[in-house]
Amino acid sequence: MLLDASTLPALARGCAILGAGGGGDTAVGLLAGLQAVEDFGPVPLVDLEELPEDGLIMPAGGIGAPTVSIEKIESGEEGGRLREAVEAIRGRPVVALMAGEIGGSNGIIPVIWAARLGLPVVDADGMGRAFPEIPQVAMEIAGISPNPAVMTDERGNVIVFRATDGDWMERMERAAAVEFGGMAWSSEYQLTVAEAKAGAVVNHAVSLAIRLGTVVMEAEHDPVEALAREIRAARLIAGKVVDVERRTTAGFVRGAVAIEGLGPDAGRTLRLEIQNENLIALEGDQALAMVPDIISVLDSQSAEAISTERVRYGQRVTVIAFPCDPIWRTARGLELAGPRHFGYDLDYVPVEELHALA
Amino acid sequence: MLLDASTLPALARGCAILGAGGGGDTAVGLLAGLQAVEDFGPVPLVDLEELPEDGLIMPAGGIGAPTVSIEKIESGEEGGRLREAVEAIRGRPVVALMAGEIGGSNGIIPVIWAARLGLPVVDADGMGRAFPEIPQVAMEIAGISPNPAVMTDERGNVIVFRATDGDWMERMERAAAVEFGGMAWSSEYQLTVAEAKAGAVVNHAVSLAIRLGTVVMEAEHDPVEALAREIRAARLIAGKVVDVERRTTAGFVRGAVAIEGLGPDAGRTLRLEIQNENLIALEGDQALAMVPDIISVLDSQSAEAISTERVRYGQRVTVIAFPCDPIWRTARGLELAGPRHFGYDLDYVPVEELHALA
Repeated sequence: MLLDASTLPALARGCAILGAGGGGDTAVGLLAGLQAVEDFGPVPLVDLEELPEDGLIMPAGGIGAPTVSIEKIESGEEGGRLREAVEAIRGRPVVALMAGEIGGSNGIIPVIWAARLGLPVVDADGMGRAFPEIPQVAMEIAGISPNPAVMTDERGNVIVFRATDGDWMERMERAAAVEFGGMAWSSEYQLTVAEAKAGAVVNHAVSLAIRLGTVVMEAEHDPVEALAREIRAARLIAGKVVDVERRTTAGFVRGAVAIEGLGPDAGRTLRLEIQNENLIALEGDQALAMVPDIISVLDSQSAEAISTERVRYGQRVTVIAFPCDPIWRTARGLELAGPRHFGYDLDYVPVEELHALA
Repeated sequence: MLLDASTLPALARGCAILGAGGGGDTAVGLLAGLQAVEDFGPVPLVDLEELPEDGLIMPAGGIGAPTVSIEKIESGEEGGRLREAVEAIRGRPVVALMAGEIGGSNGIIPVIWAARLGLPVVDADGMGRAFPEIPQVAMEIAGISPNPAVMTDERGNVIVFRATDGDWMERMERAAAVEFGGMAWSSEYQLTVAEAKAGAVVNHAVSLAIRLGTVVMEAEHDPVEALAREIRAARLIAGKVVDVERRTTAGFVRGAVAIEGLGPDAGRTLRLEIQNENLIALEGDQALAMVPDIISVLDSQSAEAISTERVRYGQRVTVIAFPCDPIWRTARGLELAGPRHFGYDLDYVPVEELHALA
């Protein structure tokens, strides 16, 4: 499959849905992606099977607060600088780029860079969604080292990190991204095709995003219904955004959103809590869905997913939740990205146990 | 000359005097230095003339807030990690270590590492004193690149920085040092012996520090007087510390110290303003000395220099000021480290013009 003007709009919609509100604004990413494939030609989307076993895959994307990413956009040279640094340190060429996270504009950024660099994008990612922190990737669970991580900014500064563990990588990279103005671009957890095939990535994440985007775009009357059926999503509430608290702090967006039910949901109120992504959906004290499952806020008419930095008072939305990739339901997956990791005193309950899903 | 138990105490005293209050506590540095030469043997102090022209010199030291450096001490492995990273990137061996700044414990740290690594220390430094910011070195003035800078912490994390300029290096390194807990160890501006000989360093800084320390230690009755005569220092005030404001913020110590005159200086009050180092000495609105000249607070009895993190109410002190290395009085030197760089709306006036020096 080629990633070009005919497939990027569906990819962008799908990335927004899988982003759980995070990963950066896909409108900005889509514009940059369309321009890149117009200027440099379409990007091959390749399966792991098409790549040499010992080929080096470079996961990459943006790091920082999505609120900042809307205004502080890349210069275009970032991907090339990251590849150059990775290849110099590893002493071998990168054979394909991969989204560190398929969610939000981070699902599209590798396509922009691949177009410029003449590289393919591999049909996989590190999460099957978006998460706020660096070590929240399948590669960490598989024991791949985050080192060397490489970061750059739009000015041309480059930093190489070798951390004692994923948590220190998160601390060092976050501090640098904050110093760069709240947003930077980076690659961590580079791995071989053989390691990826052995389960260190979430396979077919790009084609999944394109499929979800296509379902929404081609739905004849109720795109929300069509999408929910496709991904076996629970509909948590349909209503109106009545309150948004949002602050950009320490390299993250944090806050909460309140949605008051309309129609059949009148009288109910849902609260979403946010750290870049939607972490948990609460009705009173009751959790209706929680990380690592994917909670997305959709425009009730178009099923366009609304990111955490774009949600605002008055929007008519439907909140859905659907199962994460199974890797996040393992003990190590929950330790890295379950509710307790984010400070909730809650045991994880899968969304399909909380709701009877179709 | 050998740096060992017979010379390190004088070096430590001299480094404290040249530190202008900064560079880290020499008591901690001296203890670590004495232990290192006991465990690993004495360190040769070599002249630039003794080293091969194309040999690589590694400037190094601590970065952060001196208040933190008293409590967060190194593990001992930092110098080895820095050398390993520098040699891997440069593809050639380091032939000698050099103090980035001769001031404070940063004048001793290279000796500690050199003992462990079996390397000599070169009789030079990057400043002839201590300054708070990374680009405030003779190498910057000479056009040597700060890249690659290498930083490590006591845990084993390693970061390599390539900055677009010295100011971005300062921002990136400072942010990382803060994230590491307010203190880290680093090397920037590595250079060849030929570049150093061409004037990119302050030559003979280590032997100068030893000489000043020796003058103080060997003075028969008035060590302050002996020292002031040796370095042609102005005595700004002799009195008692009556107020100290000091806060550790954004990787620096900032604050001010008030000294009330005693004896012949009764009725006068001197105010020192601090950013890691003593930046300016004011009497009312009148500057009595200012960066880049060296302002040091001495114990009035012993002439032991008191660092900005150790100065406290009630100490009987004599404040002296003496000329910096001439490199800091050039246009570029004043741009990097003159009073306006630190936010003072003042033209630089050399200390010997403000006072009739002996």
